[in-house]
Amino acid sequence: MRLFGKRFAQPGTSPGRLTKHEGVAPDGRISLIHFTAETLEERVVEAVSEALSYVDQPGVTWIDVVGLADIGTLERLGERLGLHSLALEDVLHTGQRPKVQDYEANTFVVLKHLHFSSGRLDSEQVSLFLGKSFVLTIQEEAGDDWEAIRARLRSGAGKIRKSGSDYLAYALIDAVIDQFFPILEEYGERIESLQRVLLDESGQDELKRIHEINHDLVLLRRAAWPHREVANSLERSESGLVRKETRVFLRDCYDHTIQILDILESYRDLARGLMDLHLSMVSNRMNQVMKVLTVMASIFIPLTFLAGIYGMNFDPDASPFNMPELRSYWGYPVFWLAMILIGSGMLFLFKRKNWW
Amino acid sequence: MRLFGKRFAQPGTSPGRLTKHEGVAPDGRISLIHFTAETLEERVVEAVSEALSYVDQPGVTWIDVVGLADIGTLERLGERLGLHSLALEDVLHTGQRPKVQDYEANTFVVLKHLHFSSGRLDSEQVSLFLGKSFVLTIQEEAGDDWEAIRARLRSGAGKIRKSGSDYLAYALIDAVIDQFFPILEEYGERIESLQRVLLDESGQDELKRIHEINHDLVLLRRAAWPHREVANSLERSESGLVRKETRVFLRDCYDHTIQILDILESYRDLARGLMDLHLSMVSNRMNQVMKVLTVMASIFIPLTFLAGIYGMNFDPDASPFNMPELRSYWGYPVFWLAMILIGSGMLFLFKRKNWW
Amino acid sequence: MRLFGKRFAQPGTSPGRLTKHEGVAPDGRISLIHFTAETLEERVVEAVSEALSYVDQPGVTWIDVVGLADIGTLERLGERLGLHSLALEDVLHTGQRPKVQDYEANTFVVLKHLHFSSGRLDSEQVSLFLGKSFVLTIQEEAGDDWEAIRARLRSGAGKIRKSGSDYLAYALIDAVIDQFFPILEEYGERIESLQRVLLDESGQDELKRIHEINHDLVLLRRAAWPHREVANSLERSESGLVRKETRVFLRDCYDHTIQILDILESYRDLARGLMDLHLSMVSNRMNQVMKVLTVMASIFIPLTFLAGIYGMNFDPDASPFNMPELRSYWGYPVFWLAMILIGSGMLFLFKRKNWW
Amino acid sequence: MRLFGKRFAQPGTSPGRLTKHEGVAPDGRISLIHFTAETLEERVVEAVSEALSYVDQPGVTWIDVVGLADIGTLERLGERLGLHSLALEDVLHTGQRPKVQDYEANTFVVLKHLHFSSGRLDSEQVSLFLGKSFVLTIQEEAGDDWEAIRARLRSGAGKIRKSGSDYLAYALIDAVIDQFFPILEEYGERIESLQRVLLDESGQDELKRIHEINHDLVLLRRAAWPHREVANSLERSESGLVRKETRVFLRDCYDHTIQILDILESYRDLARGLMDLHLSMVSNRMNQVMKVLTVMASIFIPLTFLAGIYGMNFDPDASPFNMPELRSYWGYPVFWLAMILIGSGMLFLFKRKNWW
Amino acid sequence: MRLFGKRFAQPGTSPGRLTKHEGVAPDGRISLIHFTAETLEERVVEAVSEALSYVDQPGVTWIDVVGLADIGTLERLGERLGLHSLALEDVLHTGQRPKVQDYEANTFVVLKHLHFSSGRLDSEQVSLFLGKSFVLTIQEEAGDDWEAIRARLRSGAGKIRKSGSDYLAYALIDAVIDQFFPILEEYGERIESLQRVLLDESGQDELKRIHEINHDLVLLRRAAWPHREVANSLERSESGLVRKETRVFLRDCYDHTIQILDILESYRDLARGLMDLHLSMVSNRMNQVMKVLTVMASIFIPLTFLAGIYGMNFDPDASPFNMPELRSYWGYPVFWLAMILIGSGMLFLFKRKNWW
Repeated sequence: MRLFGKRFAQPGTSPGRLTKHEGVAPDGRISLIHFTAETLEERVVEAVSEALSYVDQPGVTWIDVVGLADIGTLERLGERLGLHSLALEDVLHTGQRPKVQDYEANTFVVLKHLHFSSGRLDSEQVSLFLGKSFVLTIQEEAGDDWEAIRARLRSGAGKIRKSGSDYLAYALIDAVIDQFFPILEEYGERIESLQRVLLDESGQDELKRIHEINHDLVLLRRAAWPHREVANSLERSESGLVRKETRVFLRDCYDHTIQILDILESYRDLARGLMDLHLSMVSNRMNQVMKVLTVMASIFIPLTFLAGIYGMNFDPDASPFNMPELRSYWGYPVFWLAMILIGSGMLFLFKRKNWW
Repeated sequence: MRLFGKRFAQPGTSPGRLTKHEGVAPDGRISLIHFTAETLEERVVEAVSEALSYVDQPGVTWIDVVGLADIGTLERLGERLGLHSLALEDVLHTGQRPKVQDYEANTFVVLKHLHFSSGRLDSEQVSLFLGKSFVLTIQEEAGDDWEAIRARLRSGAGKIRKSGSDYLAYALIDAVIDQFFPILEEYGERIESLQRVLLDESGQDELKRIHEINHDLVLLRRAAWPHREVANSLERSESGLVRKETRVFLRDCYDHTIQILDILESYRDLARGLMDLHLSMVSNRMNQVMKVLTVMASIFIPLTFLAGIYGMNFDPDASPFNMPELRSYWGYPVFWLAMILIGSGMLFLFKRKNWW
Repeated sequence: MRLFGKRFAQPGTSPGRLTKHEGVAPDGRISLIHFTAETLEERVVEAVSEALSYVDQPGVTWIDVVGLADIGTLERLGERLGLHSLALEDVLHTGQRPKVQDYEANTFVVLKHLHFSSGRLDSEQVSLFLGKSFVLTIQEEAGDDWEAIRARLRSGAGKIRKSGSDYLAYALIDAVIDQFFPILEEYGERIESLQRVLLDESGQDELKRIHEINHDLVLLRRAAWPHREVANSLERSESGLVRKETRVFLRDCYDHTIQILDILESYRDLARGLMDLHLSMVSNRMNQVMKVLTVMASIFIPLTFLAGIYGMNFDPDASPFNMPELRSYWGYPVFWLAMILIGSGMLFLFKRKNWW
Repeated sequence: MRLFGKRFAQPGTSPGRLTKHEGVAPDGRISLIHFTAETLEERVVEAVSEALSYVDQPGVTWIDVVGLADIGTLERLGERLGLHSLALEDVLHTGQRPKVQDYEANTFVVLKHLHFSSGRLDSEQVSLFLGKSFVLTIQEEAGDDWEAIRARLRSGAGKIRKSGSDYLAYALIDAVIDQFFPILEEYGERIESLQRVLLDESGQDELKRIHEINHDLVLLRRAAWPHREVANSLERSESGLVRKETRVFLRDCYDHTIQILDILESYRDLARGLMDLHLSMVSNRMNQVMKVLTVMASIFIPLTFLAGIYGMNFDPDASPFNMPELRSYWGYPVFWLAMILIGSGMLFLFKRKNWW
Repeated sequence: MRLFGKRFAQPGTSPGRLTKHEGVAPDGRISLIHFTAETLEERVVEAVSEALSYVDQPGVTWIDVVGLADIGTLERLGERLGLHSLALEDVLHTGQRPKVQDYEANTFVVLKHLHFSSGRLDSEQVSLFLGKSFVLTIQEEAGDDWEAIRARLRSGAGKIRKSGSDYLAYALIDAVIDQFFPILEEYGERIESLQRVLLDESGQDELKRIHEINHDLVLLRRAAWPHREVANSLERSESGLVRKETRVFLRDCYDHTIQILDILESYRDLARGLMDLHLSMVSNRMNQVMKVLTVMASIFIPLTFLAGIYGMNFDPDASPFNMPELRSYWGYPVFWLAMILIGSGMLFLFKRKNWW
């Protein structure tokens, strides 16, 4: 599923002109189901004209075209079923947003069929034309979520055979939309497992508590918001079941939901700040650690250097310049004095910088 | 309370078909309260038909079903009370958003019953059907917030026995919604205690002041917003209590609330930036610490290495290559010169990098 | 001012039942001002019945109740003045949002009285009932912002004595709302002083410029937004003062304000990114510092170790294994060679990692 | 320009009372331009009564008051021109939001005059009353953007002399609003120069690319949004120039703009995450650097310490406890063995922590 | 494309005055296409009067002016075609937002022509006047996206020659708007490639998973939102194709989309927190590393210093003060004891600070 997944015509070209796009799967397949409440005929047709002959017969015809390669087929369908050229252009320019457009003789619907392909999301445009006695669906590739609907048609159970083309269109659209649920379930699990990994690894109790609060506030809000609509729409219900005397109480109930959301909103505002607080605290701790390291290193590294100096083996016998300190009477005490002065001087400096 | 807590039918299956879901508690319980202003009968019934016989009698019948396992019960209820199959499907597909849906003969309400279970939030779907003379509630599990309402029914105090099924429905819904208050109280305390812990640990005064300002602005905003509605709805009040002459003053008052919110909004915008300022300041301080450490270490570590070199005990007698410097006349002064040159060279480099 | 400051009844209890809450100040005070344009009577009354006798007299009666402890008083007031039980419940359940609710005989207003108490915000619920001839105010605690209004009533200056109960209610509400201004002034100063402290401490010029730009954009936006409304409402003004010919020019003026806001919006979008840029730059500088430290330490620490090895005093006379290197002919040159190889090897490694 | 720049009356004081505020410039100036299409008279008047005599003459009178110190002047103007006391109060309580308020006899407009004063934004409230035959403007301080309008009035060119008071008011308001453009130009340059500085200093190519993308997306969005309105308002245009046949194509065009904005929105969502990715990458690199430093230091510092131990000069002759290892037969090999064991032990530990 | 790209008149100058701006390309070009369904005449004209003579002839005239330098041309066009002076001012003040403004005789459209120039976005204002029988386009610079439209006009194919000036205007506007698609395609690729680079470099698996989830949620949301409109507008469709019986099912379908969006919204809320979790985890790891370094360095650096002290070569023979410890009987054991005490003391300190 590319970030920019749209096909488009060169700007300035004539609107409604059908052009074949590269990378389109070469051969398609046209299948057809024609049914009335009593009968059902299901076929794979060779030519589109074969399918079109069913449309005028009583009953509902569902023509399902797979593949966008054959522009001739689309043109013939468009001509015969009265499809608008702008709509047909949108069929070919895949990557449209889902939308409904009413034309005079039929309604054009664009849907997005989502599915996983090797663990990543993939999407395909599904175009649907709803006419008085037909439903025409056009898919980019084979493989759809409609097998269950075909089974319902064949079995004749439920309302689907007895209802018209609009019910069939509804069933097809509903199946495409319901595909989101398993996908959302998958992502819910991914988020939860990733959370668990991150929280385990960090091993910080505060972090866990912050995240838990944020997590719960998100769920609380999801639960609280629609309750507001519940109270409100019951108060204004026109079903006649809610009497006037009860409405003042429902207004009070609505008032409660407003208060709940108000409080939740301020919680969320504050909870957002908690993570910042935590991060600031963590970097503060790191600062503490760094200061200790710096103070220790800064004091003892120069002292160690000086001790290293007097551990050198320059031969005092070879020259009077060679480390005469080593033989001087006050050498060692003066060295210690220097050490102590340097060390306490640095400590004093760091104290003044407030590092200790 | 799972992130994705919804049950759903396989995409494409017939809408309104009732299917049992896994993990549903196996056995339920049907209890019934039938009351008029004068009488009250309360029973646990075995079969649903027993309960349905009460519905046609004068008065209000409250049927409370616990458990979703028995689809037969639901089907019989649906048939007898005229419940729509889509509504019944939503009863089984728990994890719905709370909503109200008016059907011809009754109103369908979905609620979410929240409660704590071992410290974490847990939620359960509660479905409610409101009819002319009955209220049907369907809960996932036993344990509800309605004991107080049952007590009010039994005692006959207040309006509840004298009012119709809509008032009962209101009371049930209100109880579910009011359950949010103790939960919010709990989270208010959690947030406040976590704040206190984080602020104590960080021990930074600025952080405390920033957080205090943010905290107060959130509360100020919560206080200021509804005042705006107060001034506005008084100005437009149709109660007849506010005369025309006073309205111009209320408009002025409304104007003040607008100014207050305006100012608050810009405060919040700026206060959000304060945390960034603080974090930037903290990392600047850390930078300072790191620079001192780096300068100290970078200068003295190489010098210590050199001092270490001349502290080695290679025997100058064994070979003319073995540390002849130690015995040279200018050895020690040259060593110090090198030390000073290296040290001041590095200092100069760091100064140029602006590190000192 | 607690995060969750609401009092609430146990979910499921009867709506409109008045219950005393814990922590409520025990004793209250009822004071009364009754005035007409000519006369004014001001009293502290013992029993509420005393106050109620004034309500039926011509003129306006302002009954001010301090303290929520005496539920009997509230009940008597409610009965006698026709206050709805839900409203009275809200008086006791402090922590309501400010709101206006029209009941049949009177209008119920909830306000929030904010004030500082030892430097922190504190809030108190103020309830107000507006009737035809009376205003009833109920405060949680003594201490209000209405002394100035009492003075105006006593002096008889201005419109307040000549106008009805609605003007008095307006004056009381206005005083409560205007209390926000000194509070906002205080917070404005806190934010500005904190900004100054943070910017001084960080001592970074870029940071200052970024913050200045953000600060100015917030103020610019606050100035620009309402100008849009100005141009728009003048264009649509129905006062008759703006002629049709001028409206096309005002539309142009409105168009300018739209452009201004458009540009401002994109500035704000970009300015938000500047802080990120700065932070990234700061952490990049820190990275630079760390790399220098790491390279210096990583090269010289192993070398110093090696030098330390050959500075040990194992006695070569005691055993042939004891540091025979020290007496070997090529010992010292080989040591230097090793040093140089190790050092340049590490430099090469760090160069390849792009650290130098 | 202060964060809280509002003047306000003590809460509770009588609305519409005019009080002088501290810090108001002491002396003002009243100037007057009276014009008809043919004549123009321009004067600086001493007393406000002088100016008021012009108002009743045919033509338009523009009275311009500078300075808020003289409340008497305002009161006389208010009385004579029928200005509402609430409006006059707003004139004195500077720091109002820009707004328009229609009163019976005139329209009250508040504007904000922005200008730079020594590099920082400064703002001043400008109040304007528009009457049938007069415009009254009241400024806080001398120095306005209206010199060009005065010149247009004097020259008599354009429509301004021929039109009424409303056109004059428009011209004055337009001039105040147009002052935003040079200010925005200045800030546009500040943002761009600051961006350049930050990007140069950071010297990171990825950062540059991220910022460039964000920058372009902001500009793209600013360009794309209004195109949507263009397509939409052309489709719905009532000018009669767009025929019905073309509207279906404009709907298609509108559809394209929706798609464009849709895609842009998701780009912005993702681009926001890029900076986080970058920061995470930077801190990861720092982590890498720190691990190398820690491993090197942690391995060699203890080893160096041990080498240092055996470089000490405790005299083995003075006591059997004084470093007998130095003279033992296996001393040196055992020392090396210990070194290797310690070093590889630590390496093994760090490997297990995944640091190497 | 500058951040502030607007040209504007000095505030206060007369509206509708045409002034030449600096930096405008000096010479322009006027070309003209006049066509009816049968004929087409295409010319480059020298003077504007030449072009204007075509406007009154039957058919549609498209006058295309390139360059804004010649104000006289604009004035003549304005006079002759009845263009409003405010519109002409907007033509010159480039940097307008795209907009449509209906004037009496014609409609004024501002568009923004975007294109890449050496890899960066560049924009140019395109002004379009639509009259009954003409289209006037005014471009800042040569080089437009309309070559394809000119070709369609010349070939006479499609509807463009047979339709009126409004269809031509539509075609021109559509071409300008469609230019966004290739630009968005380019940015989609830039974002994706930058993502890939950043993710590769960071080499962290969690980061990758977080980013993948965020990425997918953005795409899921883009797919899910419009489905909601699909279900909703089908339910409310007035085309007559959807019967009343089916609407209740479409309402159910709409309900599903609401649930999907609800869940998605809470996912996004949580996913936003994952990056914070990750960053906190990363800085925690860094903290771990720093603590190890600090503990190692802080313990061994002072010990090494002490070892260095006793490795110095002060001559004990030269003075009794010179390191008498080296010759004392218990010197070495006491030294070790001190080492162990110091080391374990520091370990104890660090343990108490919870660093180990």
